[in-house]
Amino acid sequence: MARSEFRFSWPFRVRYSEVDGQKIVFNAHYLTYFDTAITEYCRALPYDYMGQVERTGEDFHTVRSLVEYQQPILFDEDIEVHVRVARLGRSSVTFLLEIHPAGAEDLRATGEVVWVNTDQAAHKSAALPSELVAKITVLEGDRLGA
Amino acid sequence: MARSEFRFSWPFRVRYSEVDGQKIVFNAHYLTYFDTAITEYCRALPYDYMGQVERTGEDFHTVRSLVEYQQPILFDEDIEVHVRVARLGRSSVTFLLEIHPAGAEDLRATGEVVWVNTDQAAHKSAALPSELVAKITVLEGDRLGA
Amino acid sequence: MARSEFRFSWPFRVRYSEVDGQKIVFNAHYLTYFDTAITEYCRALPYDYMGQVERTGEDFHTVRSLVEYQQPILFDEDIEVHVRVARLGRSSVTFLLEIHPAGAEDLRATGEVVWVNTDQAAHKSAALPSELVAKITVLEGDRLGA
Amino acid sequence: MARSEFRFSWPFRVRYSEVDGQKIVFNAHYLTYFDTAITEYCRALPYDYMGQVERTGEDFHTVRSLVEYQQPILFDEDIEVHVRVARLGRSSVTFLLEIHPAGAEDLRATGEVVWVNTDQAAHKSAALPSELVAKITVLEGDRLGA
Repeated sequence: MARSEFRFSWPFRVRYSEVDGQKIVFNAHYLTYFDTAITEYCRALPYDYMGQVERTGEDFHTVRSLVEYQQPILFDEDIEVHVRVARLGRSSVTFLLEIHPAGAEDLRATGEVVWVNTDQAAHKSAALPSELVAKITVLEGDRLGA
Repeated sequence: MARSEFRFSWPFRVRYSEVDGQKIVFNAHYLTYFDTAITEYCRALPYDYMGQVERTGEDFHTVRSLVEYQQPILFDEDIEVHVRVARLGRSSVTFLLEIHPAGAEDLRATGEVVWVNTDQAAHKSAALPSELVAKITVLEGDRLGA
Repeated sequence: MARSEFRFSWPFRVRYSEVDGQKIVFNAHYLTYFDTAITEYCRALPYDYMGQVERTGEDFHTVRSLVEYQQPILFDEDIEVHVRVARLGRSSVTFLLEIHPAGAEDLRATGEVVWVNTDQAAHKSAALPSELVAKITVLEGDRLGA
Repeated sequence: MARSEFRFSWPFRVRYSEVDGQKIVFNAHYLTYFDTAITEYCRALPYDYMGQVERTGEDFHTVRSLVEYQQPILFDEDIEVHVRVARLGRSSVTFLLEIHPAGAEDLRATGEVVWVNTDQAAHKSAALPSELVAKITVLEGDRLGA
């Protein structure tokens, strides 16, 4: 997928605390980058994810995380995590992610994160908030699967 | 898959540093549990993974990590990460993982981690060390895919 | 201070996720070791720290953390974090900590962590729970400062 | 100390991975903020810390870290870590740090980090590089202790 398929990205500079004994980003920290970038994607929509729990009693649970590592990411490197929503289900959102060096096409990793909206009292999945669906649909347009 | 399909597991007690604002283990830390449990699986074989780089100039790269989250894991909970090798390719090892509460069948998460053996000088994939293949084959027996 | 001055220690094996590009434990993770070892110290007393908030509306805040690094700690090394209470104030507890290789006198780091008991509603410091004071006094005996 | 005493600061937005079950930044992560901010202070001097090891065979070891926590830091909060050098010894650099909310005087934490320059072959402390001393002296001027 070309970087141009993504309408949103968020920059990171790799911290020394994030590299391992091979001086490359430790595999688990990719999920921290993904989580942080998705938070910023929601802010950009703009969707008040943090206020949702209080408003509705519903919260998102991460049910799936996938990372496919292509090329290592180095200490102090400037990277961009690209985020898009590929699919909206009744209660689920599927995010696709890509990591590139800042401003470059070179691909470091791809990934997928799936959230399910959950009624915190009933402990059951709940339909996605219509405001969220509407805003994602506007942002993603034709790139959004059914 | 039943826990009995796994010949190896490694215990963890959840640290306060590993939980997030929902008081459950943050999604990225599952990959740290997986990584640590795989290190212990290699020690149990026993396979000297850390000595491999010096002996052969080859090292493993993680090329894929998958987590499917079933039920949250709580602060101070005692869990076991079960590890088995499901497939040996020419240069790749596919680990399957499951997280259970200590001594219980209840499933918290499943996952998959794929390693590729790499010649560090040539930057190309390399055949798995025969010692590693032999020891995994002995441990896993019929549960091992081709 | 000799290791014999400590009545409690907790073992850790260093995880690959905890080392940095110099293949030694990253400086911030010492505080995670300290925090985890103090949790286990409380369990050993035994003091139900986690139940305290619900019972009393009071919780501990960390107000000070100090680490003095003596010798690096390596990947896969087995270490012990020794914990003792050096001082009990009206509302504060001062923990002293030492990190040694498992079973050895060799010193890797020393540290100090100070907790203040806090009334969560009034946002003011509160006297230490008498049960906690009594149990620490029994465990530490003469080694405890006034 | 007033924020105006600091010539350098570095911004952070708190990640969800950095907060604990109390929804505040976990105590160990303050040292990661400090470490990252000191890296950026060196870049701003500008001093090529990462190239020093190859040029001279000398590297810095962190020998002391202190954090005094004043007020909790929350998820998603924008903070600034202010850095200054308070003292230059023969082989040591003493950094003082403060954490404030972005653009505000309100104090969240103060801290101290001490580095010692070390000859990696001889395993002994080494005099600070004169280039580093000169650049710190220019930046800090009269605020620098002897």
